[in-house]
Amino acid sequence: MIIVKLGGSVISDKNVEKSFHEDVVSQIASEIAQFYPKENFIIVHGGGSYGHPLAKEYNLREGIEPNPESKRIGFSKTHQAMLELNEKIINIFLEKNLPAFSVSTSSVFITEGGSVAYGNVEVLKRLIELRLIPVLFGDVAVDLKKGIDILSGDQIITYLAKMLRPSKVIFLMDVDGIYDGKPDEGSLIWELKVREIDRLIERLSGSAGIDVTGGIANKLRETKEIAQFSEVWFVNGKVSGRLSGAIIGGGTGTKIMP
Amino acid sequence: MIIVKLGGSVISDKNVEKSFHEDVVSQIASEIAQFYPKENFIIVHGGGSYGHPLAKEYNLREGIEPNPESKRIGFSKTHQAMLELNEKIINIFLEKNLPAFSVSTSSVFITEGGSVAYGNVEVLKRLIELRLIPVLFGDVAVDLKKGIDILSGDQIITYLAKMLRPSKVIFLMDVDGIYDGKPDEGSLIWELKVREIDRLIERLSGSAGIDVTGGIANKLRETKEIAQFSEVWFVNGKVSGRLSGAIIGGGTGTKIMP
Repeated sequence: MIIVKLGGSVISDKNVEKSFHEDVVSQIASEIAQFYPKENFIIVHGGGSYGHPLAKEYNLREGIEPNPESKRIGFSKTHQAMLELNEKIINIFLEKNLPAFSVSTSSVFITEGGSVAYGNVEVLKRLIELRLIPVLFGDVAVDLKKGIDILSGDQIITYLAKMLRPSKVIFLMDVDGIYDGKPDEGSLIWELKVREIDRLIERLSGSAGIDVTGGIANKLRETKEIAQFSEVWFVNGKVSGRLSGAIIGGGTGTKIMP
Repeated sequence: MIIVKLGGSVISDKNVEKSFHEDVVSQIASEIAQFYPKENFIIVHGGGSYGHPLAKEYNLREGIEPNPESKRIGFSKTHQAMLELNEKIINIFLEKNLPAFSVSTSSVFITEGGSVAYGNVEVLKRLIELRLIPVLFGDVAVDLKKGIDILSGDQIITYLAKMLRPSKVIFLMDVDGIYDGKPDEGSLIWELKVREIDRLIERLSGSAGIDVTGGIANKLRETKEIAQFSEVWFVNGKVSGRLSGAIIGGGTGTKIMP
């Protein structure tokens, strides 16, 4: 079973409200259709310009306090915006005869400290046995400490990798993989050993501790954990054939080595 | 905590494709707004003309066999149709400042023999503690024996009543309550004792075993179980004030007596 992460920046332009890259998602679905049903898939997608603006407007990461009336409304609206994006993806998959099935992250997972504290994966396991393709997404979540929080797609994947032991986790990005500097300055790392990740994070973060690559350091921290349970790939989701390459086990991108 | 069932025939006309009674749902939400947040609510709605036609077209009650490729697609499409109906209800509640929150039935519950075999209610419990209003719906479901099945709103309520012990379960119908015959022939039963239910089912079903009232016998069978854990009311959801009456504990309708 392969988990594919559709990064928010691959499927959507974060600077344009409710933007959706239908052509990109359609290309990704076509590549998956070449391997399904011989291979099983779980899809996890990010929020792009659907979930993030509302989560920010209502300050949901802060928790249910100090303004619970407003937070409750924002919690629901953010989930509905994510369902709207999710529906677009589901429909494209169904058009290609891929039985993508929407699973609402917030109905299943409870968080603590930004990670999954609890989540029952029994429904997911059975959906895969039935050869359906579960599609989860970054979403709002009930949180043990703060009442409510946001659960990112990457965090869901870390939990699923631990619980379901996929053969591969493939992160689709809007760049060619992991670079040893800014994407436009550094060079692409083709193979990255898990024990080299900490050093790379340090270099990317610089002396000021600022992540110049926009969240790559966080992704690499997750990767250290995911790599304990699964092969991990980072490839460009906007370039045709890169996902197929990672599924087969070659092509342009970054492979994380044990 | 009060569980309110929005019957499919209250919110939708089953003979008209994707019909939605916005005015009725709006009226129901206004009545709930008079009691929230002093009182907590869970809403469960039926499929109306959204879920049923697809479930029937794809013959989902039959299970994943004998045509799994088609069943998988129908399974996903039926869920998406229910999410579409659910979104309309959520939006009306949000407009009235009621923090209704969509919970996807199929992400949480696994069925067997048409009932819930397994369902984790931890997220629901915490949503209620946070004073959100979870909104569930009749939906497709993973089934232990048949692979897939349909889970009705009424069955969800039976399970929730057992697990969450609400103070009241109120079924909103398109008639005034339970009748001792066909709604246009029999007279309204104002109080119905649990031990009289079997006899009433027998009378309604007639000697041929056919339910002349369209599903009321099934509802009464569920009621026998729900009444072990909660007060149960049947009132007309299309008549303003009837829901409020049941919440307060009076007015026109059928009250199930222990």
